Amino acid sequence: MRMYDIIQKKRDGGVLSAEEIEFFVNGYTASEIPDYQASALMMAIFLKGMNDEETAVLTQSMAYSGDTVDLSRFGTLSVDKHSTGGVGDKTTLIVAPIAASVGCKVAKMSGRGLGHTGGTVDKLESVPGYRTSLSSDDFLSQVEKVGVAVIGQTGNLAPADKKMYALRDVTATVGSIPLITSSIMSKKLAAGSHSIVLDVKVGSGAFMKTVEDARTLAEKMVEIGKRCGRNMTALLTDMNTPLGHNVGNSLEIIEAVNVLKGEKTGDLREVCLALASNMISLSLGIPIDEALKKAENAVESGAALKKMTEWISEQGGDASYITDTSRFEKPKFSRSVKATQSGYIASMDAEKIGISAVELGAGRASKTDEIDHAAGIVIAKKTGEYVKKGDELCVLFTNNCACLDEAEHKYLDSLAFSDEKPSERPLIYGVVG
Amino acid sequence: MRMYDIIQKKRDGGVLSAEEIEFFVNGYTASEIPDYQASALMMAIFLKGMNDEETAVLTQSMAYSGDTVDLSRFGTLSVDKHSTGGVGDKTTLIVAPIAASVGCKVAKMSGRGLGHTGGTVDKLESVPGYRTSLSSDDFLSQVEKVGVAVIGQTGNLAPADKKMYALRDVTATVGSIPLITSSIMSKKLAAGSHSIVLDVKVGSGAFMKTVEDARTLAEKMVEIGKRCGRNMTALLTDMNTPLGHNVGNSLEIIEAVNVLKGEKTGDLREVCLALASNMISLSLGIPIDEALKKAENAVESGAALKKMTEWISEQGGDASYITDTSRFEKPKFSRSVKATQSGYIASMDAEKIGISAVELGAGRASKTDEIDHAAGIVIAKKTGEYVKKGDELCVLFTNNCACLDEAEHKYLDSLAFSDEKPSERPLIYGVVG
Repeated sequence: MRMYDIIQKKRDGGVLSAEEIEFFVNGYTASEIPDYQASALMMAIFLKGMNDEETAVLTQSMAYSGDTVDLSRFGTLSVDKHSTGGVGDKTTLIVAPIAASVGCKVAKMSGRGLGHTGGTVDKLESVPGYRTSLSSDDFLSQVEKVGVAVIGQTGNLAPADKKMYALRDVTATVGSIPLITSSIMSKKLAAGSHSIVLDVKVGSGAFMKTVEDARTLAEKMVEIGKRCGRNMTALLTDMNTPLGHNVGNSLEIIEAVNVLKGEKTGDLREVCLALASNMISLSLGIPIDEALKKAENAVESGAALKKMTEWISEQGGDASYITDTSRFEKPKFSRSVKATQSGYIASMDAEKIGISAVELGAGRASKTDEIDHAAGIVIAKKTGEYVKKGDELCVLFTNNCACLDEAEHKYLDSLAFSDEKPSERPLIYGVVG
Repeated sequence: MRMYDIIQKKRDGGVLSAEEIEFFVNGYTASEIPDYQASALMMAIFLKGMNDEETAVLTQSMAYSGDTVDLSRFGTLSVDKHSTGGVGDKTTLIVAPIAASVGCKVAKMSGRGLGHTGGTVDKLESVPGYRTSLSSDDFLSQVEKVGVAVIGQTGNLAPADKKMYALRDVTATVGSIPLITSSIMSKKLAAGSHSIVLDVKVGSGAFMKTVEDARTLAEKMVEIGKRCGRNMTALLTDMNTPLGHNVGNSLEIIEAVNVLKGEKTGDLREVCLALASNMISLSLGIPIDEALKKAENAVESGAALKKMTEWISEQGGDASYITDTSRFEKPKFSRSVKATQSGYIASMDAEKIGISAVELGAGRASKTDEIDHAAGIVIAKKTGEYVKKGDELCVLFTNNCACLDEAEHKYLDSLAFSDEKPSERPLIYGVVG
C-alpha cells in the first residue's frame, strides 16, 4: 500500500477503505508517513469529504493509536460530557457532581484553556490543593468511591489526533466536519466512557457560527459515536453570549457553586440541567423527564453540592473554598465598566469577551502563558437587557492594572446596542440523539 | 502575510494576489515555508484551480527564483522547442539544425531521460566526444557562431520548480493544468528564448491521454507564455505510437540523420517539418507557409545536415559518426520479434514500448541507472500495417542478453491486432497559437 495512492484516491473523490485509513493513521503516528503527505491528504479530505463509514474508521484508528482508559469496571454507568468550547462555560463543574450524586460514574479528562475559551482544569486549579494529575489507579478508585474525578489529559491518548490536529492547525484544514468529528470523538472513545453527551456550542463565541453547521457536526458526531458502540446525545446550545455571568477561573467556580446552592435564575442553570439530565438518562437508561427530575432534585436537596465538596476534597482541594466561596483570593484591581449610551443590549460577541478576559490574565494567548486565577469579568447586563448611559455593564478583575484599559476597550467593543428590544434567542436549539 | 491565510484563501476557491503567490514561491524556495504547508496549497490548487493571471504570476515567480539565461544578444531570433515527452521523440536533433540553418538561434537546454521517455542529452552522448556541459560563455558563443547549441540543464534554473515538482510528485498533485503549465513554462522562461514552440504529445505514450486534455494544457501554456512576453505556438501531436521507427539513443541519432539526409517517408519527417516551420515562423517573423518552404529547402539542400555536423563538431563530438552512421557501436545481442498472429496492428502502446526499451538498457528506471547507448528497438511494422504470423515486428538490440525475453514480452504486450484496418489517426491534431 502506498500513501501516494491514498492521497490520489481521496483527491479524486474516492471512498477510502478501512485498510487505507488504518495504513495512514498508523504510519503517520509512527512518523513513517511524512507531514507533507499527511497535509495533502487532509486538504483532499477537507475538500472532498468522507462518508460516515470512513469517518468512523478514521475515528477508531485515531482512538486506538495510543493509550485508552478502561472504564469497563463501571459497566454502562460511565458517562462523559464534552463541550465544543465556549466563553464562561463552567458546566462540567456543575453537571459532573449532579450526575455523580444520582449514581452515574463521571471519569473525566479535561483540557486547559487556550485562546478565548477557558479550560476546566485551569478553573479547578483555582481551588488550593486540587490535584489535576492522578495516577490511573487513583483516578479509577476515586470514580469508584465518589462517582466523579476530573483530571488533566494524561498518558498518550489518541496521539494520532495530536499530530493531525497540530498539522491541520497550520495548513488551514481544521474546519472540516469529518476531521473535527474524528478529532473530538477519537479522544472521547479513548477516554473510555460508555455514554457521551455532547454540548455543541452555536454562535459568535463558538467554532460553529450557525445552527445548521452545529447540527451537521452534532449529527455526525452522534452517528460516529453510535457506530463505535457508544450511547450518544448531543445538545445544540447558544454561545452568542457568554454562559452565565462570570468569566474567569475562580469566578466560574463561584458561579458553579451558586447554581449548586440552588440559585434558580439564569441560562447557566437551564443548560446544566439539560446536560445533566441527558447524562443521567443515558447512563442510568431512564427516560429524559425522569432524569430531569433526578437532576433538579439533586440540586434542590443539596446532594449535588455535597458531591462537589466530596469530589474536590477527595482530589486534594480545600473544600472550604466551596462551602465558603468568599475565601477565594480577591484580585488587586477592579474596574466597573459603564454604558456609554442608553438602549437595549442587542448582542454580545462572546469571543471578544473571552479575549477581554484573556487580556485581564484569565486565559492564555499562547500555551506557555501563566494564568491569573482571580482575574476575569462579572457581567452585570446581558443581551436583551435595557441599560441607561452610565449604568454598570460589568466589572473587570485583575492583578495587573496595566491591562484594564485594553480589556475595557475590548469589552465595550463586544457590545451592540439598539433602541428596540431584541427578539429572544433560545438557549437550547435542539437535541440530536 | 501568513502562509496559512494563503492556503485558506485557495482552499475556499479564492484568487491569490501577485504578492501572495510571490510570498509563497520565495518563501518555499528559501525553505522558510515548510513542505507540509506547500503540499496543502498544491492540493488546494489542484482541486480549486488557478486563473490565467495567477498562473502567469506563479510561472514568473518560479522562473525568476534562480538563475536565468540572458539571450538578449540574439534579439528576437532566439527560439526554443519543448516537447512534453514521448517515446522515440528525436525531434530536437532534427529541428534544431533545420532552424539554425535558416538563421534562427537555438540555445537549448535539454533533459535526461527517466522512465519510459528518453532524453535528448542522453542521445547526444552517443556521439563520442560530445560535450553536454558548456560554460555559459562557450554556450552563447557557439550559438552566436553556429546557430545552435544543446546542453544539459545547468546552473540553478527555476529552483522553485525543482522543489515544487519533487513535492507534487509524492503528494499526488502533478496532474493539475496550472501546476503543469507553471512548471514547464517557468523553466522555458528561465532558459531565455524569445520564441517557444511547444510540442504537446497526446496519446497512450504521453502524459495527456486525450486531445481535449492536451488542447487545454496547450492553450494554457500558450496564454501564459504570451502574458510573460514570449512568442508562442503549440502543436498537438500524436504519441499513441512511438515517433519514427527507432527507440534508443544512438538508434535515434541515426534516424534523425536519415531524415536530414532527405529520407522522405514517415511520421517523423512530417512532425519535424511542422515544428521547425513554426520555430522559423516565430523567430524570423514570417508567414508559416514561407517558413515551411525554408524548412523543406534546408533539408533538401543538405544545409540542415551540414548544420548538424557543424554543431556536433563544434560541441566536441566526432562528426564522422553523423556523416557515416554505420560507425556507431553495434550492440552484442539482437533479436527479431515475430508476429504471433496475422492481422492489422490496431494499436501500439507507446508507453509499454518505451518501457521495453528501458528494459533493454536504453533508458533509466531510476535516476542513477547507467545507459546502454547502443540498446533499443527498431520498429518494422507500425499501427495500421498488416502482418502475417511470423513476420518481423521489430528488432531488439542490447548489450545485456538477459533482458531480451522480458523486453520481447513487453513489446508484444504493447500491441493489439484486429482483422480490420484501423482508421488512420492524424499525426498533428491541431495548432494553438
